[in-house]
Amino acid sequence: MASEVPTRAYRRLGVEERRSQLLDAALSLFAARAPEDVSLDDVAEAAGVSRPLVYRYFPGGKQQLYEAALRSAAEELTHCFAEPPEGPLTQRLSNALDRYLAFVDEHDAGFSALLQGGSVVETSRTTAIVDGVRRAAAEHILVHLEVEEPAPRLRMTVRMWITAVEAASLIWLDEEKEPPLDELRDWLVEQFVACLVATAGRDAQTAGAVRAALAMEPADGPMGTFARAVLPVVSDAGHLL
Amino acid sequence: MASEVPTRAYRRLGVEERRSQLLDAALSLFAARAPEDVSLDDVAEAAGVSRPLVYRYFPGGKQQLYEAALRSAAEELTHCFAEPPEGPLTQRLSNALDRYLAFVDEHDAGFSALLQGGSVVETSRTTAIVDGVRRAAAEHILVHLEVEEPAPRLRMTVRMWITAVEAASLIWLDEEKEPPLDELRDWLVEQFVACLVATAGRDAQTAGAVRAALAMEPADGPMGTFARAVLPVVSDAGHLL
Repeated sequence: MASEVPTRAYRRLGVEERRSQLLDAALSLFAARAPEDVSLDDVAEAAGVSRPLVYRYFPGGKQQLYEAALRSAAEELTHCFAEPPEGPLTQRLSNALDRYLAFVDEHDAGFSALLQGGSVVETSRTTAIVDGVRRAAAEHILVHLEVEEPAPRLRMTVRMWITAVEAASLIWLDEEKEPPLDELRDWLVEQFVACLVATAGRDAQTAGAVRAALAMEPADGPMGTFARAVLPVVSDAGHLL
Repeated sequence: MASEVPTRAYRRLGVEERRSQLLDAALSLFAARAPEDVSLDDVAEAAGVSRPLVYRYFPGGKQQLYEAALRSAAEELTHCFAEPPEGPLTQRLSNALDRYLAFVDEHDAGFSALLQGGSVVETSRTTAIVDGVRRAAAEHILVHLEVEEPAPRLRMTVRMWITAVEAASLIWLDEEKEPPLDELRDWLVEQFVACLVATAGRDAQTAGAVRAALAMEPADGPMGTFARAVLPVVSDAGHLL
């Protein structure tokens, strides 16, 4: 430190620092309550500043603050999806889902309010931000599947699963976070594989991606457990073959 | 007819008739365009009445008219799900999906605008109406699965698939209704079976329901085709067993 005077507690924050402090305070509040139940006074109080100061930084008031907080949450969430292209595919998906579900767990009330829709702060801009996160998730998955120019069928399967994950997250929050997070994660990975396998039945590109992905899975890994758990159920339908 | 005078074209409609005539006009407009792009003048013109008359029936203006039209569409959609509990399960699901997808096809622009969210007419009431339709769909499916007191895992699987069907419908509308409707329908049925089979791996109740359902499927039906199409893909992952 250049100075020995304990200025930290008293010094005025720079513009960017102040903005980010206000955003952090807003994000914590919007994570814990529906936007309807967060006032600018709450944000000012949480940040330890005056209401006019909040307005100076966010002249559009709650709507602007909400959108800025959402944009920052969306960025954080998009970072969750980054995963190095190494190891079995289901392990990578599992890692990314772990981070995603931790985010859902942490932002529970705000996540529900946002995705359930019908909120007063919902606009075409907020839905575009949420949609951007979905698209980013789909692109990440398609990159890991190592398919050049994924065709509509594979894209649709991936996007359907992403929506299903959102639905599962909402139900999970609604049902007091049952089953435990790691069980939910493993089950969502299994659902992903099942959806891809089903599409593989009518789409050669997907079949190629599934074959390549399953070849990397070890028998003593989660896909081995999954395959052995499902086998008795499908074996009973042998009359279909 | 009691009278020979051709009064029909001139007679004044009763209150209920007029209301339903206005609703029909509104529903056609809301089906073809986003709510933002429908004015009360458009509704009045489509119904061949004056704007004040529309206001007399719907004093809350466009918002009230939109919600009433949505409620009527939701009722229509819920009727789509009714299917007698006879024959193979996938045939019943296929019949219901046929009607659902025909509805999506017919109400395309309005369906997209509604489910994409962020519309000016979206409120907690409109999302509650849409949610009611989803719940009705889930209940119908659970009844057909003949499971007494379905546990959370099975319920969650069914609700995830319903959300995935919605996502697929939106993508389908967005991609100029490709693939053809009957192909999309068959594929969604296959996805349903795949999701259930995956859940069956970790849930005894679901496993029982899947076994009973697959036992009813004939080898020369869609599930036979599906099983034979998927078999080569999963056979290549024999090292997992």
